[in-house]
Amino acid sequence: MFKKILYPTDFSDVSKKALASILALKTNEAQEVVVMHVIDSRNLDAMAQYVPADLLRTQEALEKIAREEAQAIADELEKKGFTVKIRIEEGIPSRNILEAEEDEGVSSIVIGSHGVSNIKEIFLGSVSEKVIRKAKSPVIVIKR
Amino acid sequence: MFKKILYPTDFSDVSKKALASILALKTNEAQEVVVMHVIDSRNLDAMAQYVPADLLRTQEALEKIAREEAQAIADELEKKGFTVKIRIEEGIPSRNILEAEEDEGVSSIVIGSHGVSNIKEIFLGSVSEKVIRKAKSPVIVIKR
Repeated sequence: MFKKILYPTDFSDVSKKALASILALKTNEAQEVVVMHVIDSRNLDAMAQYVPADLLRTQEALEKIAREEAQAIADELEKKGFTVKIRIEEGIPSRNILEAEEDEGVSSIVIGSHGVSNIKEIFLGSVSEKVIRKAKSPVIVIKR
Repeated sequence: MFKKILYPTDFSDVSKKALASILALKTNEAQEVVVMHVIDSRNLDAMAQYVPADLLRTQEALEKIAREEAQAIADELEKKGFTVKIRIEEGIPSRNILEAEEDEGVSSIVIGSHGVSNIKEIFLGSVSEKVIRKAKSPVIVIKR
């Protein structure tokens, strides 16, 4: 179940808690982790309505930050002996995560699940709910 | 994460797949499993409208079958070295499962999730969805 783990992260606290669970799995059969972050293209589109001139730069800036954050996670996992692959993509988070599940042939998905105490969390929570509903592999859901 | 696992089962194929995942966890830190089955009291109530005279017997029969099925699961887990506790309850499945999570102080919940290809599965699927949404521990969701 833990040979190749897909770890989608929005770099939130609950995603970090999910990372801690993956780190704790080492010494078992866990070997490879795909660290994935999806920049929501719908957010970019929404921003474009207000700041069209800055869009490209914003997108690049978001991607740069995401790469740095994902690299820090990869370093931590590699230190524990995992093989790591980073995927930074722009798209619809749940859709891209389910595509990555297929592409990568992962054996499980470890995902943090937000509660529903504010609007952002209602939205973010729904990413994990869609992934849980449609994934084919086992999904390990880490709660806040 | 796997020291004490709550394993709610409806004895379906996907629940059996979830059991296989638990069995595969042995040799790691996995130690104790609470095998739980909840007889849905709403089904009993619905039946009572049609077959009132047979209700008590039906309920007893359901409980007897559930105990036998749960015991077979317990035997399999014990053979692998797990400590096992059986809980057969009557109530609202998701509510009783979340109460057991608290009572037993489990470190995770391993649950099978049905797809939604028929009415029964829409209903059963919703048990796991409620558990995933409200549980505090990590939930390992095994898909069909």
